[in-house]
Amino acid sequence: MSESTTVTAALVVIGDEILSGRTQDANVAYLAKWLNEEGVQLREVRIVADDTPAIIEAVNTLRERCDYCFTTGGIGPTHDDITVDAVAGAFGVEVVYNDKALQLLRDYFGEAELTDVRKRMARVPAGGDLIRNPMSGAPGVSMENVFMLAGIPGIMRGMLEGLRGVLAGAAPMQSEAITVYAPESEMAEQLGLIQQNHPAVSIGSYPFFRNGRIGAALVARSVIAEKISPAIAAIRTAADAIGAEWTDGE
Amino acid sequence: MSESTTVTAALVVIGDEILSGRTQDANVAYLAKWLNEEGVQLREVRIVADDTPAIIEAVNTLRERCDYCFTTGGIGPTHDDITVDAVAGAFGVEVVYNDKALQLLRDYFGEAELTDVRKRMARVPAGGDLIRNPMSGAPGVSMENVFMLAGIPGIMRGMLEGLRGVLAGAAPMQSEAITVYAPESEMAEQLGLIQQNHPAVSIGSYPFFRNGRIGAALVARSVIAEKISPAIAAIRTAADAIGAEWTDGE
Repeated sequence: MSESTTVTAALVVIGDEILSGRTQDANVAYLAKWLNEEGVQLREVRIVADDTPAIIEAVNTLRERCDYCFTTGGIGPTHDDITVDAVAGAFGVEVVYNDKALQLLRDYFGEAELTDVRKRMARVPAGGDLIRNPMSGAPGVSMENVFMLAGIPGIMRGMLEGLRGVLAGAAPMQSEAITVYAPESEMAEQLGLIQQNHPAVSIGSYPFFRNGRIGAALVARSVIAEKISPAIAAIRTAADAIGAEWTDGE
Repeated sequence: MSESTTVTAALVVIGDEILSGRTQDANVAYLAKWLNEEGVQLREVRIVADDTPAIIEAVNTLRERCDYCFTTGGIGPTHDDITVDAVAGAFGVEVVYNDKALQLLRDYFGEAELTDVRKRMARVPAGGDLIRNPMSGAPGVSMENVFMLAGIPGIMRGMLEGLRGVLAGAAPMQSEAITVYAPESEMAEQLGLIQQNHPAVSIGSYPFFRNGRIGAALVARSVIAEKISPAIAAIRTAADAIGAEWTDGE
């Protein structure tokens, strides 16, 4: 794979509970880091309501646009768990019971306790497959390049472990940071020039007010590891030029 | 305003740092709650890269679809601060210097220190206005129904305080919760019926594994306050019917 290959993913968070402010999302940052370890870049996230047309629109846009599309949430047994149906709608296929999933649920709950409601968790879009859930009975579901994960962070993380090495990834993004204790506006002009001089590196400036001090974390990212240090060195030089204190890292 | 009026907002988070997993978003939940206090419902969130076409697409879709569109991030002085330019692009207008903003920056930094780079923070889309920033010199920017806020949580929150009462909101969403200590699959069928019987209420089921116990927080939401308690009462009855422990709240 050439250095310039980028493999991308998007995430659709299905979550009234996030949009209402009830729940603080904990999955975006985790998935972003996990994808990066797999050599895949998270390109866009959409948080949509528990609403079938909204999910279909987001999934259809993002599965076309990116190499992979993940969803979190809405794969349980209750009336507000509509992800599998919505993704089937996005692909224009029926929802079917998956035999392996039924067996998993049978093993987990026991035949007598495998109620119709629990069988809902064995439903997949026709042509879909399962994602192993090491934590509880109900598996995640995949459909072509769409991966439907649980919304509960612990279960989502378990499902991701099972997906290690499954995605075709490129080189993971590398990064290095330097913290400069100066208003970012004092560095802005130099940073713009440094960015121009290091086109293979993406330089982000993240200002902060921390313990009464003003500064900015400057992060240089690239899939080409050896391009990063020269950019950071240029930032150090620029910080010295304005007499600003700096520390490596952030 | 009739009970059925819904006023909606969307949020575009401009943030390579979120998509890389470097930063855990802290603004979505805060904005969601703040909007709800103003009688506005957050309908969709998109997290996009620091990329002009991506920002334009998200802003143009969401400012049409919702009554209000907020953005966070990318309004500082550095090369990666492209929000104002992108929103101007979305509206098809030029970027201009705003005199009030220049004066604010002059007051904050002093004339001698008001460099060209810092003047960048006085740029607004032509026809745009300012959002007061009680914490540091650079104001937020509004353009018709688009509100551009800082990405730093403390500054974003200050800007939102200045927007209190500015949006035309409807009745705020009310909610009540009950926690049932049983697998949600045991409640699922009854919950589906309760949802059908209480159409003015949206019932969400949020399962958890907490301190070794399995359960679900069930949240009933409605803009019509008096519709909520009967739904919660029906859930209590359903929990009793399966012999499950429950507690009010979550």
